[in-house]
Amino acid sequence: MGNHPCRTVDPARVAACGSLAILLEASASPKPGNVGPRHPRFGHFVASALACRPALEGAAREGRNLGLWFRRAVEASVRAQPGGNTHFGTLLLLVPLAAARGDRGRARALVKRATVADAAEFCRAFRAAPIRVAPLGGPLDLRSLRAAAAVRRTGTTLYDLVTLAAGRDRVAKEWADGFAECAWARERLAPHIRRRGWNEAVARTYLDLLARAPDSLVAVKFGEAEARKVQRKAAALRGAPVDRIARWDSELAERGINPGATADVLAAAIFLRLLEP
Amino acid sequence: MGNHPCRTVDPARVAACGSLAILLEASASPKPGNVGPRHPRFGHFVASALACRPALEGAAREGRNLGLWFRRAVEASVRAQPGGNTHFGTLLLLVPLAAARGDRGRARALVKRATVADAAEFCRAFRAAPIRVAPLGGPLDLRSLRAAAAVRRTGTTLYDLVTLAAGRDRVAKEWADGFAECAWARERLAPHIRRRGWNEAVARTYLDLLARAPDSLVAVKFGEAEARKVQRKAAALRGAPVDRIARWDSELAERGINPGATADVLAAAIFLRLLEP
Repeated sequence: MGNHPCRTVDPARVAACGSLAILLEASASPKPGNVGPRHPRFGHFVASALACRPALEGAAREGRNLGLWFRRAVEASVRAQPGGNTHFGTLLLLVPLAAARGDRGRARALVKRATVADAAEFCRAFRAAPIRVAPLGGPLDLRSLRAAAAVRRTGTTLYDLVTLAAGRDRVAKEWADGFAECAWARERLAPHIRRRGWNEAVARTYLDLLARAPDSLVAVKFGEAEARKVQRKAAALRGAPVDRIARWDSELAERGINPGATADVLAAAIFLRLLEP
Repeated sequence: MGNHPCRTVDPARVAACGSLAILLEASASPKPGNVGPRHPRFGHFVASALACRPALEGAAREGRNLGLWFRRAVEASVRAQPGGNTHFGTLLLLVPLAAARGDRGRARALVKRATVADAAEFCRAFRAAPIRVAPLGGPLDLRSLRAAAAVRRTGTTLYDLVTLAAGRDRVAKEWADGFAECAWARERLAPHIRRRGWNEAVARTYLDLLARAPDSLVAVKFGEAEARKVQRKAAALRGAPVDRIARWDSELAERGINPGATADVLAAAIFLRLLEP
């Protein structure tokens, strides 16, 4: 609104950079296990990247109501293509960062201030997207129709709800840690870009991120041990020739192992980089 | 500048939408003969899309010096990837449209006012990109080191230089016609998007454009008759099932027939659409 502290950054610019970040993340390859331009789901990712633009603009304009704008972004993303969920985790990072117009300190403050009403909207978003994540709400099934009511009854804020999963979900951890990994990856991008150009910078930063922590989507789907194996392999392949990384990509794709939480953090890092002055 | 008549549109937003438009054009498929996500050159197109962002922002901020910003955009695009020219024609449309911040009437006025100095810069851009286009300068070889001097001596403005080729170059024709085809294609996108989603909207609008006029890049490389054949085939395939269009894509790709001028107009149409209020 008029008294938004970062009003010099245009909301429409924030939103365009959000779509651009999502599209750049999807366009880089090889990113072992995840969607790249030759992946059959690439088209879904493009449609989703564009569809969430109005919601990101709304978040940037208001600078609050994270739950509402997150739900609208997820709903638009799911409506825009037939492949179900594509960017739930990415949007859980991009919406607060967009509301803060790329200012990480402000994003940290915004998520801490997220309300019970935001949590109820989040539960509605959960129903829109058929996703597999660590059980964010613990014993509470967020997909159930009663989740929003339960959240209101217990006075659970969106910050409470998301950070409940911070120990086992890479995206949730970013809410708890003030987007620390997003900022770390943003810094990694710069030297890679100077040395090797944009595509390889994104692909290498992906490996850097994957080597730093087990991917939580892999852990949910295949167990913690598999997630740690993926992490070790990523660490071993940093600096390897592209064809070796591409071979690992084929292996993971064949087994359906997609480190999606890592891609979410990467997209947020690209977004922060695009919004740098 | 401070007195820019469309200062309410943020230059950084214009630039982000420019990169996004180029990337969306490249990401849509099938677009018979042209680069899509599975094309070996896709990575070059992504790098180029991002690299021209600062120059587009400069154009939007200044609202003049089209030649300078065009040269900077082309140079950045060529430097960002190893594949030579990717977006010469696209940028010849996007730079004036960016300088006008998406206002077509203003873009028309800006190109008409382009100067001799702009023409000299254009000649320098020509040397940066190894391109094949209709011989824009007629008897004058624009690639020669003396072209800029000749342009100055003869008092040729950039508008003169570009519109010399309006009869045989689809992009040049847009300068002469006030971006009429770009605006036409922008209007075509809307109903397609509503009915079929983003990817198919872009791919269908590509066919619509290709059916309207012979592609001038095809004409330069393969002759006017081949360009007309491509045009007729595009007209026949409008509304056809996607797999038939994809088959034609493979055929054209195999023969190296790329209707690049049509893709340039399409990218500009997407850009105009992204900048709509």
